[in-house]
Amino acid sequence: MQRIVTLLTDFGTRDHYVAAVKAVLLSVNPSIQLVDITHEIRPQNILEGAFVLGSAFKHFPEGTIHLAVVDPGVGGKRQGLAAATERHLFVGPDNGLFDWAFSLEPPRQVVALENPDYRLPQPSAVFHGRDIFAPAAGHLSTGLALEKLGPPLDYQMRLPGRLVFQGQKELQGEIIYVDRFGNLISNIEIPLAPGGRHLQDLQVYLGREQVLVGPTTYEEGPPLRPFALIGSSSLLEVSVRNGSAREVTGCSVGTSILVSRQTHGEKSSY
Amino acid sequence: MQRIVTLLTDFGTRDHYVAAVKAVLLSVNPSIQLVDITHEIRPQNILEGAFVLGSAFKHFPEGTIHLAVVDPGVGGKRQGLAAATERHLFVGPDNGLFDWAFSLEPPRQVVALENPDYRLPQPSAVFHGRDIFAPAAGHLSTGLALEKLGPPLDYQMRLPGRLVFQGQKELQGEIIYVDRFGNLISNIEIPLAPGGRHLQDLQVYLGREQVLVGPTTYEEGPPLRPFALIGSSSLLEVSVRNGSAREVTGCSVGTSILVSRQTHGEKSSY
Amino acid sequence: MQRIVTLLTDFGTRDHYVAAVKAVLLSVNPSIQLVDITHEIRPQNILEGAFVLGSAFKHFPEGTIHLAVVDPGVGGKRQGLAAATERHLFVGPDNGLFDWAFSLEPPRQVVALENPDYRLPQPSAVFHGRDIFAPAAGHLSTGLALEKLGPPLDYQMRLPGRLVFQGQKELQGEIIYVDRFGNLISNIEIPLAPGGRHLQDLQVYLGREQVLVGPTTYEEGPPLRPFALIGSSSLLEVSVRNGSAREVTGCSVGTSILVSRQTHGEKSSY
Repeated sequence: MQRIVTLLTDFGTRDHYVAAVKAVLLSVNPSIQLVDITHEIRPQNILEGAFVLGSAFKHFPEGTIHLAVVDPGVGGKRQGLAAATERHLFVGPDNGLFDWAFSLEPPRQVVALENPDYRLPQPSAVFHGRDIFAPAAGHLSTGLALEKLGPPLDYQMRLPGRLVFQGQKELQGEIIYVDRFGNLISNIEIPLAPGGRHLQDLQVYLGREQVLVGPTTYEEGPPLRPFALIGSSSLLEVSVRNGSAREVTGCSVGTSILVSRQTHGEKSSY
Repeated sequence: MQRIVTLLTDFGTRDHYVAAVKAVLLSVNPSIQLVDITHEIRPQNILEGAFVLGSAFKHFPEGTIHLAVVDPGVGGKRQGLAAATERHLFVGPDNGLFDWAFSLEPPRQVVALENPDYRLPQPSAVFHGRDIFAPAAGHLSTGLALEKLGPPLDYQMRLPGRLVFQGQKELQGEIIYVDRFGNLISNIEIPLAPGGRHLQDLQVYLGREQVLVGPTTYEEGPPLRPFALIGSSSLLEVSVRNGSAREVTGCSVGTSILVSRQTHGEKSSY
Repeated sequence: MQRIVTLLTDFGTRDHYVAAVKAVLLSVNPSIQLVDITHEIRPQNILEGAFVLGSAFKHFPEGTIHLAVVDPGVGGKRQGLAAATERHLFVGPDNGLFDWAFSLEPPRQVVALENPDYRLPQPSAVFHGRDIFAPAAGHLSTGLALEKLGPPLDYQMRLPGRLVFQGQKELQGEIIYVDRFGNLISNIEIPLAPGGRHLQDLQVYLGREQVLVGPTTYEEGPPLRPFALIGSSSLLEVSVRNGSAREVTGCSVGTSILVSRQTHGEKSSY
């Protein structure tokens, strides 16, 4: 049975760690279709991992298994989990890494990975990705029922969540991710309006500075000046055409962002 | 039907963008064999993308589909295209990205991606890779006829092309790519001669400096001194053994290179 | 026949070189399951490649073919080889790159890649990965007998080998790899003891400094202080919790490491 298993880790791609995880997956089920989401999450940065996983998973076909490992507490008290949402399966540490995905598709069933039958023998204390998570995901890909992996686990959200701007006068969120191009991506979702996606009637403040609205593509932005637009995941983001909004604004993860339907007196210096 | 789809982008590998494209491809056709060419094209560098695609595609089996996205004009006026050459299919923006490939295998049919039936619903203005190009490539992989994707498009070459050194007294080209090892690769092709590949009877000038010829492998080069050889794609390149020709010469993309059958008075200082 | 072919190179991922190798493999056998081990071996660093390959290969299923290219001598006198161990197949240059793997699973049969029937026509002198190694691996994946590729070759080990700490009073090894997290990994294997894996009765010296033992996971380590633990491949390594042991200690590949059952007078300054 060909099933897709995606991988997201902070292992990087120059060591043998990712290959060892894939090797264990293929040893359990040689016909898996493996897809790397990324292995470049900054080491131990759970928030970053949660955002990238949550942004990628939803496009995959029903039944895809998402194996994610950003795991500062490996070998310690945190538990391993496997979870099922309406359309997807997830395997990894119980440390918040699945929060963003679960805010889009709530988990229907979550179990703790306690059954030794679905681990490598004598698992290493320092490499649960290979010894515990990969075997669990591999067995799920063969059709194993989730509850075989262990007892139910009560999942708790830990990270800043998605906020939907819909009807409020104003909404304050924060920058939660900066992509390769320097785009500052917030946790504020702007749902599709009847006339399409635009910010024209809104004001946007990044920190204390008002940001231009209007352009709907990167190419339409003015030179060197930050502007707000609705990104490819319907999230409010701040960009600079042919440049990096992070560098131009000096802002990064944690900066507040405010969207409002009212005119504010303060004007931008950008 | 298992078909190969290659991917070449400037998305990098740390964000969710590449995974989203693959997810859409697999949603249309779960049995695709995905092969990454690279995602490390420097942002918006069409020339670099065109060279890497043109150097890689020709080795793939007949029927391979090449999805390429280096797309500074996303959401603007440039069109999306799908094209068929004698042996391959191509999907991506119409901005010169396919020039190098098409100089090796001319397009027989090119269409504009205008049919909304083969896009995601409500495509984002900023992510055509996921919303327009991936669905088109996915459907082509299931056997869809090219003309179903949209009306014919008149393809125009935009970038510096390949020059073949064959019979001329001299030929001037330029450096068009610098690889990871610092090798300076030109757009001058030296066809296979009856006695094999060698430059022994030729003079090569990089900018104003004559470059050593003679070594046919990287290992044969003298220490620290740049030399010209025929690279793995039959293109004239300048290398330094165990070092970087870019660093040693200070030259990069755009530097002129001249190959000649006559002795020049000027001597190299390298 | 779906066979796994792994790839390990120093080609990096931004040029077309890896894609060209994969293209040739898929041209010989379109149903190969390709798995990248890494392409980020530092250019021409055979020791690094040997360690990563040796750490990754053993987890793959029986019959996996490992294609490895770190090849400073390409086009020169070194030979190409294909080898079979009890469970795996290997293809690449004969320069020590397979030493670490073969110290875990000795080769039973090794041949030189001399048969022109299993090369690309007119192989380039500078890209044996594409023109000689990939065709050989591709044909092995279709079931070709190893001896068809060429005559027997007498394999010689070249690199520092694995040392097993078992019964000795003390054993001196060296750091042979530094991973992405800055963990200093040695060539000393600590076999699984009856009571599990621990270093509690041992002393460990990195260079001239004694290193803390006791923690068995990264999370248990004290802040900022290097400690020795048994890593995921049963090798003795030195780590710093939430930090880089390379940066904190200033040590790297080649530093000596000593494990001993006796108390030494000298105390650590870490």
